Amino acid sequence: MAGSTLGTIFRITTWGESHGKALGVVVDGCPAGLPLCEEDIQIYLDRRKPGTSSITTPRKEEDLVTILSGVFEGKTTGTPISLMVQNFTQKSGDYSEIASYYRPGHADYTFDEKYGFRDYRGGGRSSGRETIGRVAAGAIACKLLKILGIEVIAYTQSIGPIEIDPQKINYQTRLETPTAMPDKEANEKAMEYLENTRKELDSSGGSMVCEVFGLPAGIGDPVFEKLDANLAKAIMSIGAVKAVEIGAGCSVATKKGSENNDAFRMNNGKVEKATNFSGGILGGISDGSSLYIKASVKPTPSIFQTQQTINKNGENIDINIKGRHDPIIVPRAAVVMECMTAITVLDAMLVNMASKLSDIQDFYKK
Amino acid sequence: MAGSTLGTIFRITTWGESHGKALGVVVDGCPAGLPLCEEDIQIYLDRRKPGTSSITTPRKEEDLVTILSGVFEGKTTGTPISLMVQNFTQKSGDYSEIASYYRPGHADYTFDEKYGFRDYRGGGRSSGRETIGRVAAGAIACKLLKILGIEVIAYTQSIGPIEIDPQKINYQTRLETPTAMPDKEANEKAMEYLENTRKELDSSGGSMVCEVFGLPAGIGDPVFEKLDANLAKAIMSIGAVKAVEIGAGCSVATKKGSENNDAFRMNNGKVEKATNFSGGILGGISDGSSLYIKASVKPTPSIFQTQQTINKNGENIDINIKGRHDPIIVPRAAVVMECMTAITVLDAMLVNMASKLSDIQDFYKK
Amino acid sequence: MAGSTLGTIFRITTWGESHGKALGVVVDGCPAGLPLCEEDIQIYLDRRKPGTSSITTPRKEEDLVTILSGVFEGKTTGTPISLMVQNFTQKSGDYSEIASYYRPGHADYTFDEKYGFRDYRGGGRSSGRETIGRVAAGAIACKLLKILGIEVIAYTQSIGPIEIDPQKINYQTRLETPTAMPDKEANEKAMEYLENTRKELDSSGGSMVCEVFGLPAGIGDPVFEKLDANLAKAIMSIGAVKAVEIGAGCSVATKKGSENNDAFRMNNGKVEKATNFSGGILGGISDGSSLYIKASVKPTPSIFQTQQTINKNGENIDINIKGRHDPIIVPRAAVVMECMTAITVLDAMLVNMASKLSDIQDFYKK
Amino acid sequence: MAGSTLGTIFRITTWGESHGKALGVVVDGCPAGLPLCEEDIQIYLDRRKPGTSSITTPRKEEDLVTILSGVFEGKTTGTPISLMVQNFTQKSGDYSEIASYYRPGHADYTFDEKYGFRDYRGGGRSSGRETIGRVAAGAIACKLLKILGIEVIAYTQSIGPIEIDPQKINYQTRLETPTAMPDKEANEKAMEYLENTRKELDSSGGSMVCEVFGLPAGIGDPVFEKLDANLAKAIMSIGAVKAVEIGAGCSVATKKGSENNDAFRMNNGKVEKATNFSGGILGGISDGSSLYIKASVKPTPSIFQTQQTINKNGENIDINIKGRHDPIIVPRAAVVMECMTAITVLDAMLVNMASKLSDIQDFYKK
Repeated sequence: MAGSTLGTIFRITTWGESHGKALGVVVDGCPAGLPLCEEDIQIYLDRRKPGTSSITTPRKEEDLVTILSGVFEGKTTGTPISLMVQNFTQKSGDYSEIASYYRPGHADYTFDEKYGFRDYRGGGRSSGRETIGRVAAGAIACKLLKILGIEVIAYTQSIGPIEIDPQKINYQTRLETPTAMPDKEANEKAMEYLENTRKELDSSGGSMVCEVFGLPAGIGDPVFEKLDANLAKAIMSIGAVKAVEIGAGCSVATKKGSENNDAFRMNNGKVEKATNFSGGILGGISDGSSLYIKASVKPTPSIFQTQQTINKNGENIDINIKGRHDPIIVPRAAVVMECMTAITVLDAMLVNMASKLSDIQDFYKK
Repeated sequence: MAGSTLGTIFRITTWGESHGKALGVVVDGCPAGLPLCEEDIQIYLDRRKPGTSSITTPRKEEDLVTILSGVFEGKTTGTPISLMVQNFTQKSGDYSEIASYYRPGHADYTFDEKYGFRDYRGGGRSSGRETIGRVAAGAIACKLLKILGIEVIAYTQSIGPIEIDPQKINYQTRLETPTAMPDKEANEKAMEYLENTRKELDSSGGSMVCEVFGLPAGIGDPVFEKLDANLAKAIMSIGAVKAVEIGAGCSVATKKGSENNDAFRMNNGKVEKATNFSGGILGGISDGSSLYIKASVKPTPSIFQTQQTINKNGENIDINIKGRHDPIIVPRAAVVMECMTAITVLDAMLVNMASKLSDIQDFYKK
Repeated sequence: MAGSTLGTIFRITTWGESHGKALGVVVDGCPAGLPLCEEDIQIYLDRRKPGTSSITTPRKEEDLVTILSGVFEGKTTGTPISLMVQNFTQKSGDYSEIASYYRPGHADYTFDEKYGFRDYRGGGRSSGRETIGRVAAGAIACKLLKILGIEVIAYTQSIGPIEIDPQKINYQTRLETPTAMPDKEANEKAMEYLENTRKELDSSGGSMVCEVFGLPAGIGDPVFEKLDANLAKAIMSIGAVKAVEIGAGCSVATKKGSENNDAFRMNNGKVEKATNFSGGILGGISDGSSLYIKASVKPTPSIFQTQQTINKNGENIDINIKGRHDPIIVPRAAVVMECMTAITVLDAMLVNMASKLSDIQDFYKK
Repeated sequence: MAGSTLGTIFRITTWGESHGKALGVVVDGCPAGLPLCEEDIQIYLDRRKPGTSSITTPRKEEDLVTILSGVFEGKTTGTPISLMVQNFTQKSGDYSEIASYYRPGHADYTFDEKYGFRDYRGGGRSSGRETIGRVAAGAIACKLLKILGIEVIAYTQSIGPIEIDPQKINYQTRLETPTAMPDKEANEKAMEYLENTRKELDSSGGSMVCEVFGLPAGIGDPVFEKLDANLAKAIMSIGAVKAVEIGAGCSVATKKGSENNDAFRMNNGKVEKATNFSGGILGGISDGSSLYIKASVKPTPSIFQTQQTINKNGENIDINIKGRHDPIIVPRAAVVMECMTAITVLDAMLVNMASKLSDIQDFYKK
């Protein structure tokens, strides 16, 4: 079905395959008057770009964005913003073998079952390159949120057994380390771990965290459109994510109420919570604390060891995947998580403006 | 916003507060021709009914469902099915105190921030009774799925530190134990644990699992409407759920690709996977294995110990919550998870029918 | 499919059949803080109630509304408002004959083709009683719009060959005449015409107009969600409506640009238009003038003359419809048009609040 | 808001302004397996292309379409199809004057009121060029419908006072006449009329009709998603359309039931209607007869006579619009109507597949 569109007021529609002519996104419902240029978007795309270190595929993908519509005299007009990134490596000769079998951990088999056939070049629509549209749209959401005083920050939390030290987090650092870890020491250990993983012709899982600072209380809805429910969907929709946690996450299962309840406290006339196990959301609505979301990401399914699988003729075979593949997905996915979070939070904020009659009366001056 | 509606083709809209006149759901888009009577729905509602054991609130809630529309001569007509459960305990005298302050872990504060005021009687719309509509609608989805050969089964996986033994699962047992555990031994240990928790005036977290058997491959969509993304939203939208995992879930973060990839294998002419770490979903689309989804549920926030919080005047206060509250949410939430999963899977199956031109040609006989 | 829901932020879901237990609507997304009681809704339902004059069916339908949720201490809470009207005349013995054949001009045949069978009692879901939910929801929209200074007024414009005289319109009069005409003289002529029509065992078509006063400029969207496009959908979705016109409507086809363009003019510092052929909408967005929408309604298909049709066995037959039927639909449909217009305009206004960055900054005080 | 997306399963999102870099559309939810190439789309775009006769603007717009995604080895893959048409005439120097005032009949004023400013170059998003995306998407819908045996045909029905003669309709002719009339004689008279209109520095209104042949009975939904309601929205959303009629349209208002009811009749074992005043839709659902939809289109608002209006400073002024403008919109809009109808009908057909349990059981072979 029409599964490439997300959002109610700030709504994005992504398109494009790994080896098609281009990939892109249409951002519809972006409010008018936002200063926007290609550089605003490019800096986000550059964070997901491969080829920048030993732990990303050495494929050369420039991924330069063009704004095709929706911006006039440097500002968004309120009409759809169409963003496009051209593909320069459309050669598909190397993929003839992959076309004949189903790679373990990939969507080859499920696409064939659903659609009857698939664009097998580089994973087609199920490629990680699908996230280009998400990041381009998310860059706009991030820019708008910043103007509203809201900062969205995602980073690598762990790679295999290596975790960051929460005490040593420096958010700026995540933009400088190849692992996207905000902790230089952990980054170094993780790089070493990944080097060994690569030598074993293997890949590694990891986890990433997104935090949102400055979000006012009252955002989100009580039932199906809970802010955490929409965040769970947005984050789980990123390829390879297998778990989403809010606040204390899985650990709540073994906690007691007396441990897990966050006490409300007044602090200099402001409402605060003594702890933030809720991750900033109560009853689906933001509670004024920062949001804390964690995602667990599976190891890259493309590994260079011999693997068992089946081919399209229904025969058991052994395969050896070739090509260039990241040994870990997380470092390049963190910016995608940041963007999906921003898109979700912004949309909830725009929808929220019509919650109270008094606000509507103010708006229409009655 | 209009956050009480979920689904594209099979679409549900729930309504009602804890202490209003009634609660209910409108199920729109249910295919015509499904045999349906109130008893089909009542058996699901009875599974979430309180007062059935020492670990559920002794409140008496009969929760009898009435079908108000959409069924004619014993079958669904294709038009909206309106289901209603009347509330018989609408007395709200006891809630005057709660109206004045914000209970930790509850949505009192966030509702006030969003809407300017709230129905404070029993949590209003943020009460666990809101799930009545979900369960009533889910009962219909479950019935329809069974006719298609698909079984959806949710159960309590853990309560505090007590976990079920996967080797001892008997799905029928979950319908008989007060904990909704499918393992009698674990159930007994959990009951003991909960008894102690209650004595400590505390509450306990837990986890629940939902499995789906018989789902064909090819269901779900590649990008934002991934089957796992929609399941994550549906499950995270259940109050108190703080984490959703698919298949191997959080454990993928420390795994290697060679461990986590599920090998495809032919078995008597059928495609199978040697393992099911994917939880039955690859690239957002069902892979023919059973679905495996896990949710972590926070401890009941209403505990009887003295707690710190603030009141509506912005003063720090101590409170002692009164009333009757379950010491654990999971046993009554498992059927809600079963229902939300069924609703999500069924909707994805209905949407999926238009995926291939050849299927459409067959349908319209061209 | 799930075709009983309408709206983005102010969203309604109707349910119920002519002879089921009840009919109703869930209004989700109504802003919190609106004073609301059953009487507010009842006065609108009473305008569509039959049995009030010689030109409506003498069936006795009291149609008393109950608010089941969403209102607390006299105000809307922001959560779903469930409204129900019980049916007291559920006897279906008289409909056995109708079950066997397809009435011309009715939806009997199309329902059977779509769903395989139908609730044949009184038209089931395709009955005019389906509009009860629309009117109940619309009453809320009208009340909210009035607070914002916006008045929505619909009335009968013509019955057969009898048209109202635009010079003699008194809007209050429409609430007092059995025809819903805002012109007493036209009403009398129309009553006479209808009396003759009834004697001929026939029925009559007619037209109705809805005007909206006080709507600010800037409401609606440029492409598919044009205000006129959504009005066209909302009005055309009322059973028996066969044409929707905006402003000059069909007459534009024979006009020249120099005749049809409305000149903008300043008037005491306010922007006005010298004429209003646009009907208050330019490019899909309100232009500050009053909205003018006209709908043409077909004659009641149930007539008492002998008619040709087919039965379910595929045989040509002659039928004589019995029962009690309005000789004209328009007088009771005008309030439905008023309500559908109000719902559409209100939703567009709520969505519109997020159009400009500067407004969003004001709202979130940044 | 996000008003550039339309459809539930077959869903289109258009983007682009008159003088931006490009215009386009993303078609999401197109079933997999449809043979598709750029030529399939180009022939539809060529029908809306200007500069082909004396009655279209002599502007040179090549409007060549590129398929950027969603097609692999000549067939649609089920993933989003991104279509782009580059703009070659982006010069905006000529528009500086227009930026300062509000043209009568245009959306200049309403855009400014909604968004605070506007892309004034050639009308920006409110330009007729916005329909490029609609036509490109509609070409795909038309191709798919043809495979299902359904033909969608739109043509000019009248230009000013000149109407086609229904007896002389030759559908092929509409593709050959500059007026898009399917009647050569009427075309000649209309051309003469337009020549005079042009000499008077004026423009003309007109009307267009769309017919759909081969549509099975049972398509559409009973309440808000009535097939006629969605057609009304889709057609009314085309710029300059001010009225939409189904079947007998406005004429039903003066008809009697005995005249307007279409008798069902058996004809060689097939269900037929003796007449088709219903326009092929009863109760919102297709009745097996051909669809008949009529739209009235206002005269081009850009005329070369001196006009009164206001400027952005709120002053009354006289203006003389320059540039090149069609004296009539209809001939180029007919193909847009054809495309919007096809998109709407196809989406309804895809949604309809899940209406009956028995069909779902067949599909999933249970």
